[in-house]
Amino acid sequence: MAGAMSRSRGKGECGAMSRSRAGRAGSGHEIININLKNKPDWFFEKNPFGLVPVLETSKGQLIYESPITCDYLDEAYPGKKLLPEDPYERAYQKMLLEHFSKLTPLAYKHFMAIQNGEDSTALKAEFSEKLGKFEEILANRQSVFFGGDSVSMFDYLIWPWFELLGCFMDLYIFSSHTPKLKCWMDAMKQDPAVKATMTDFQTFKGYLQLYVKNSPEACDYGL
Amino acid sequence: MAGAMSRSRGKGECGAMSRSRAGRAGSGHEIININLKNKPDWFFEKNPFGLVPVLETSKGQLIYESPITCDYLDEAYPGKKLLPEDPYERAYQKMLLEHFSKLTPLAYKHFMAIQNGEDSTALKAEFSEKLGKFEEILANRQSVFFGGDSVSMFDYLIWPWFELLGCFMDLYIFSSHTPKLKCWMDAMKQDPAVKATMTDFQTFKGYLQLYVKNSPEACDYGL
Repeated sequence: MAGAMSRSRGKGECGAMSRSRAGRAGSGHEIININLKNKPDWFFEKNPFGLVPVLETSKGQLIYESPITCDYLDEAYPGKKLLPEDPYERAYQKMLLEHFSKLTPLAYKHFMAIQNGEDSTALKAEFSEKLGKFEEILANRQSVFFGGDSVSMFDYLIWPWFELLGCFMDLYIFSSHTPKLKCWMDAMKQDPAVKATMTDFQTFKGYLQLYVKNSPEACDYGL
Repeated sequence: MAGAMSRSRGKGECGAMSRSRAGRAGSGHEIININLKNKPDWFFEKNPFGLVPVLETSKGQLIYESPITCDYLDEAYPGKKLLPEDPYERAYQKMLLEHFSKLTPLAYKHFMAIQNGEDSTALKAEFSEKLGKFEEILANRQSVFFGGDSVSMFDYLIWPWFELLGCFMDLYIFSSHTPKLKCWMDAMKQDPAVKATMTDFQTFKGYLQLYVKNSPEACDYGL
């Protein structure tokens, strides 16, 4: 379910995003990794946007865009659903994702500012302020996960960013200022699907070092 | 269901987007229009992004972002559903919307280029090429609507752009080059929800003239 990571790491068709879900459903699947620094032409026939992940079903149906693919997997496979049943709660998860989508570019900008030796103080403050909203949400909801007492779609969708946040930001943010997020991270790390798809920190760091150098070897690093 | 229009025209809480749906469900609702050139502070408490539409339920639940609000209304109210039941068809509708979201900024850029007396040839060509994809989709699916033989969520979500396209673009695009889209537009104009929420072309033109002049009167024009 590591959608965002799979996009940046170059996990391709039926990629990392589907691993947990397909694994839970017990269905067979093949992973084809796409080198995002050198995408093959045929990949644009699978997804005109040229982004990973893409899911191709046994019927040849193509599904892309991480949240759309996750919704599809949740609807198409049996078992416990990751999206809540209640229409408002479903909408709430999607709205949270909209808010989170404003946070991730800041983490990247902050990382790049540091790489380029620029002052990153304002970006760090803005990131921290926006992240604080998610701490507030967990505090207000009085729940371990964003969807309640068990892991939900939104938790899985944002998890990869937190797993890898140490590469982008100092770990100061997971201090006493965000105890609820720390609890959430600890709980996420115990989740079987998270455990099964965790990327080693050093591997990601090595990949990232090659990626910022625009190396074509980046996407194969650690695979 | 005129989501995009409601956003740009400044139809606020429980705005134009919900009109057809709420109307179909027979539920009572109140429309509060928001002047997008002068948004009240309280509106940011309803939606931190400050965008319309926002839907507030009788329980005080707040829902924003057009596609999320439409999904909510489709799920929360009884009656014929606008999103298909089949998981792939649902994903397909959402992917179409992603593609369409790349088209609308081009229409706006084209309009602004003309307003500013700039050369708009390249923008027009790019818009026309992207629009052609939607003509192809209707041709390949051999259906009147994008979701099949009856109007679906995607048809409603993009309709406002076509309703108002004459203001942004020459009507050349609805010539013999796009016969399927022309058929689709004719069919949409017969839809009761579309009829009930249609904006008069002259009214929209008058509004747009004020809007590009940054006039605070723009959002009240024609209401």
